[in-house]
Amino acid sequence: MSVPAFTVWGVTGIPEIAEGDDLVALIGDAIAAMGAEHALRDGDILVVTSKIVSKAEGRMVPAVDREKAIADDTVRVVAERVHPGGVTRIVETKQGMIMAAAGLDMSNVPEGFALKLPEDPDRSARALCAGLRDRFGVRLAIIVTDTVGRPWRVGQTDLAIGAAGLQLTDDLRGANDANGRPLHVTMAVVADELAGAADLVKGKTSGIPVAVVRGMGRLVAGLDAPGARTLVRTGDDDMFRFGSAEAYRLGYEAAMAEMKRGKISHERSKEQKQD
Amino acid sequence: MSVPAFTVWGVTGIPEIAEGDDLVALIGDAIAAMGAEHALRDGDILVVTSKIVSKAEGRMVPAVDREKAIADDTVRVVAERVHPGGVTRIVETKQGMIMAAAGLDMSNVPEGFALKLPEDPDRSARALCAGLRDRFGVRLAIIVTDTVGRPWRVGQTDLAIGAAGLQLTDDLRGANDANGRPLHVTMAVVADELAGAADLVKGKTSGIPVAVVRGMGRLVAGLDAPGARTLVRTGDDDMFRFGSAEAYRLGYEAAMAEMKRGKISHERSKEQKQD
Repeated sequence: MSVPAFTVWGVTGIPEIAEGDDLVALIGDAIAAMGAEHALRDGDILVVTSKIVSKAEGRMVPAVDREKAIADDTVRVVAERVHPGGVTRIVETKQGMIMAAAGLDMSNVPEGFALKLPEDPDRSARALCAGLRDRFGVRLAIIVTDTVGRPWRVGQTDLAIGAAGLQLTDDLRGANDANGRPLHVTMAVVADELAGAADLVKGKTSGIPVAVVRGMGRLVAGLDAPGARTLVRTGDDDMFRFGSAEAYRLGYEAAMAEMKRGKISHERSKEQKQD
Repeated sequence: MSVPAFTVWGVTGIPEIAEGDDLVALIGDAIAAMGAEHALRDGDILVVTSKIVSKAEGRMVPAVDREKAIADDTVRVVAERVHPGGVTRIVETKQGMIMAAAGLDMSNVPEGFALKLPEDPDRSARALCAGLRDRFGVRLAIIVTDTVGRPWRVGQTDLAIGAAGLQLTDDLRGANDANGRPLHVTMAVVADELAGAADLVKGKTSGIPVAVVRGMGRLVAGLDAPGARTLVRTGDDDMFRFGSAEAYRLGYEAAMAEMKRGKISHERSKEQKQD
């Protein structure tokens, strides 16, 4: 039996990114400088921190405009909590992510500035994928990641917020298990698992914003493969569409409104009887 | 600059596990049979699917007792939804996980049976870690994983539900970013990222329940390091303690109860005036 395996490494030597920088050129140059062992091959998956994509795309805003920047990227507020340090506001962003402060990032940016998520991370991923495939002549995939908190767990993990040239899931919903019984509900989101794996070498303090995953070439697909936006599930059927406090308040207000209507209609019917 | 890197591979040749099996012996034998290249070294992290831990610990129940098995492992119901295929019930389990059907597993078990989560996955991880450290004389870590759905995202990823000998998080809350500014809120949950990475080689149909991660030895810790239970955040301060529908109903019912009390006290005060 062959041993399934893959390797992950960080791409060193990528300089600080500024607005207008050509990421294909800068990432490509850094990879080229790493030598033959780390030269890209067919089936490699590049995992890119969204922060450098945002920087290249000019998504930096003055920190004083923080609230406006969050509002700009917010589709709706999901949950809010006031605590001694301020307000934690979990929102659904334009990009479909549910994140604190709409993903606005205050770390690893110059003092006095904040960084918004890329406008369309899938589009950014497609551009990187096309450009790097072209430069190196290899069939690779791109994942753009961000760091996201989760309900019911401490801390954060990295998720795929953009992707190109990648099969995002191992959809086993039609497959059978080892006993031949159908696997009804299992759809492993390999894009998110790859994002998390890459974070283990990228880190937040190391200045390594790109990682390469080698050995998962079976997941590399055409440039027209669906992007990470398709991993989002935020419709009305979302069981956690609102925070508990927010949903509680909606229920409370609905009951009050109903009572008020009931009282009015009750009083009206009394008035009608008196007529 | 040195290149940060790690490798992940699947452990082949682990037989079907039955109640009472000695997992240390069976995993150890399979690893030993893989030869020198895959022999364990200091700093290796073994990632073990909870399914084989449950099987060895005799957590199989007849499928007809499914509802009772779910109830046994349920601390509280978080959210519930009726749909054409039945009821999806998201619950908090004894193990602290928020999972559909309390993590009860119907795949890769014999027809007519279902499999509960390990009673205490951290305890299981510690036993495996101590046993395998002893057998091979190397300092390794153990993660026990399960496959879990997430709010706001399609599909599932693997998370750490048990751990031993592992630093679970890269806690950067005191550290500085590359610009020397403090990283206030970042705590990367590397245990979950490792669990997801390992799932990429384990898979659900391959019959490979164990993976080895090599290159992350900086995360290997003493046997007394905190277990995965410490990654759980399900207290009253949890912003998503209940599903939206459940919280809405609680708010609705609270308003109704208040109105009723208000009406009663209003009528009482009228009675008192009449006295």
